[in-house]
Amino acid sequence: MRKVAIAGIGFTKVGEPWERNIKDLFAEAALAAMKDAAHTEVDQLYVANMMGAHLQGQLGMGAIMAEAIGKPGISAARIEAGQASGGVAFNEGVKAVASGLNDWVLVGGVEKMSDLLPEAVTTALVGTEEQEYTSYTGVTKTGLSAILHRLYSREYGATPEEIGWFAVRSHDNAVGVAHAQYSFKLSIERVMTSPMEADPIRMMECAAVADGAAAVLLGPAEKIATGIEVAASTVATDYTSLASRRHPLTLEAVKKAANGAYEAAKVKPKDVDVLEVTDDTTIDGVLSLEDLGFVEKGKGAKFVAQGHTARTGEIPTNNFGGLKARGNPVGATGLYQIVETVIQLRGKAGANQITGAEVGMAQSMASVGSTCSIAILRRV
Amino acid sequence: MRKVAIAGIGFTKVGEPWERNIKDLFAEAALAAMKDAAHTEVDQLYVANMMGAHLQGQLGMGAIMAEAIGKPGISAARIEAGQASGGVAFNEGVKAVASGLNDWVLVGGVEKMSDLLPEAVTTALVGTEEQEYTSYTGVTKTGLSAILHRLYSREYGATPEEIGWFAVRSHDNAVGVAHAQYSFKLSIERVMTSPMEADPIRMMECAAVADGAAAVLLGPAEKIATGIEVAASTVATDYTSLASRRHPLTLEAVKKAANGAYEAAKVKPKDVDVLEVTDDTTIDGVLSLEDLGFVEKGKGAKFVAQGHTARTGEIPTNNFGGLKARGNPVGATGLYQIVETVIQLRGKAGANQITGAEVGMAQSMASVGSTCSIAILRRV
Repeated sequence: MRKVAIAGIGFTKVGEPWERNIKDLFAEAALAAMKDAAHTEVDQLYVANMMGAHLQGQLGMGAIMAEAIGKPGISAARIEAGQASGGVAFNEGVKAVASGLNDWVLVGGVEKMSDLLPEAVTTALVGTEEQEYTSYTGVTKTGLSAILHRLYSREYGATPEEIGWFAVRSHDNAVGVAHAQYSFKLSIERVMTSPMEADPIRMMECAAVADGAAAVLLGPAEKIATGIEVAASTVATDYTSLASRRHPLTLEAVKKAANGAYEAAKVKPKDVDVLEVTDDTTIDGVLSLEDLGFVEKGKGAKFVAQGHTARTGEIPTNNFGGLKARGNPVGATGLYQIVETVIQLRGKAGANQITGAEVGMAQSMASVGSTCSIAILRRV
Repeated sequence: MRKVAIAGIGFTKVGEPWERNIKDLFAEAALAAMKDAAHTEVDQLYVANMMGAHLQGQLGMGAIMAEAIGKPGISAARIEAGQASGGVAFNEGVKAVASGLNDWVLVGGVEKMSDLLPEAVTTALVGTEEQEYTSYTGVTKTGLSAILHRLYSREYGATPEEIGWFAVRSHDNAVGVAHAQYSFKLSIERVMTSPMEADPIRMMECAAVADGAAAVLLGPAEKIATGIEVAASTVATDYTSLASRRHPLTLEAVKKAANGAYEAAKVKPKDVDVLEVTDDTTIDGVLSLEDLGFVEKGKGAKFVAQGHTARTGEIPTNNFGGLKARGNPVGATGLYQIVETVIQLRGKAGANQITGAEVGMAQSMASVGSTCSIAILRRV
């Protein structure tokens, strides 16, 4: 099996550009990744996208994006694993290069959620839950997270404020980040007085509707002089329904994907210098931190509130704002996380740089954890 | 790069089982493939599905189907490339095993198109065309094929009857096939007097709405005693819009994928013993035969009318009825083709057996050729 490296990265600013379509966004990110790599050859394209069928009526994005980036004819496919589509597509890219069947693989993610009816977006966001058993009840993705939030508070005695701190930390890191959707600071008071989204989760604890695209160009490590190595890339799944899980507060997909990745990369949580986790809502971020092994189960909220995930803390997390502040264009989010990890490992994060970052980890999750992808990257 | 073989196959009868859902169909095919292989270990699951978001509102089928086959937790992803989803997912499966990152990979496709409004299905079927440039005009997939049909007749002087013969040949091969949707013979008179679907394409020249699932279990060739070897698996794309192509009657994606596959497998068209091609409409089948290299451009319709693709002809094609008669549950179709090719290479096709079949080819195509997948399988 060949070693795989990241030759180039590209991304758009996350926002609500009503005047741009999915091709336009995707091409900006993909062409930027090729330019960054100073390499224009692409053997295989993976397009990560979650909600194109729901929101744009668009299927077949593999072929469409191949054409959009000026590469009509190349092998291409769309990868969909809900909100984890970007991370899972990255995993496909790694396999394609590792197999030796492809040398240069472009993995890009795109989502366009603005300029549509909010109801349509809400419906699409709960699309990874089983339509016949869960979604038909009318529950939303945030509603499912709210169940976990309540259970977490009851089981571990965490206060709403402690959980709410996850959003504050994310916003702290987005200040000055040019590609972030919301690059402003957010106080815990502002979080805790924002309207209820799905009781007890408040609006300012939730990632917003966002458009964006991010991409990486992968290649064989031996052909890339200054790349960042893929030390591990894993994917795991779990029972979709919370009611089917042994303990809803343990995200088994996260644990399984993380353990596989630690083993493959031969690292432990303490070796990870920079981390990107899924904070679609605050509680998602807290549970992720725990099941990735950075803090004991039940102690994640306090851990965040006390500052251990801040830039100066023991595990700098969501270093450009995470889903909450950088933004969450869902199908692209897993690739934003990977791109941002690369920026850190390259030492190019400016004011956001974590000094001496050598090992980075990105965790992407569909809904409340039905699929989880993990990438561990290493500066070599 | 490791050699990849097919350890087991499974499939459902194609039809309109209103009482069954996508999980049920998928599980039947997937469990049958595992049973056929006498192997229950699965490291990675790929789910091919085109229209689940449009028709069932369902995303995240990787995790859902992992659970449905009794393997919650395994790595899983959905692959979507329109009507070529099954063939493209097969390509991902081959890469996963070839990479050495996975040993046992289950690739299954499923589609459920019945028990829904026909308009919804028609809309979904044209989903791989660009929504902003093509689909919004109201054109259907069959309408696009009708443009090619007219152009073909004008350019090469083929008669509607000659093109219509493709449907007759497909139905001939479905007689007695237990898993076929329509296992009856169809006369050319019946084809040519059926109602217009999209002038000049008649209803009996079109594959119908269908439900079904098909699956293969892939593994490393050295670990499979009696498997069928994957000699080549390729994917190529083309400009989505017919108007952007140099010559609409040449399916560049088909040519490119086929040439890549011939080269990788070290075979030529004359070495292929059994063939499965995309006859979503008759003209799609004719053009596919030509661009795969089995007959000169412009002579495909006559070639079929004269019987050269029949069981006793020079290139036995669509040996269980093809999309027209076996049926076209779109996301699963590429895998039905591969499964049927395996049955032939195993010599287990009963009355449909092509004696001494050693090399088989399956071609799957999205819409009018925006994506094409090719698999060449070999008995070893």
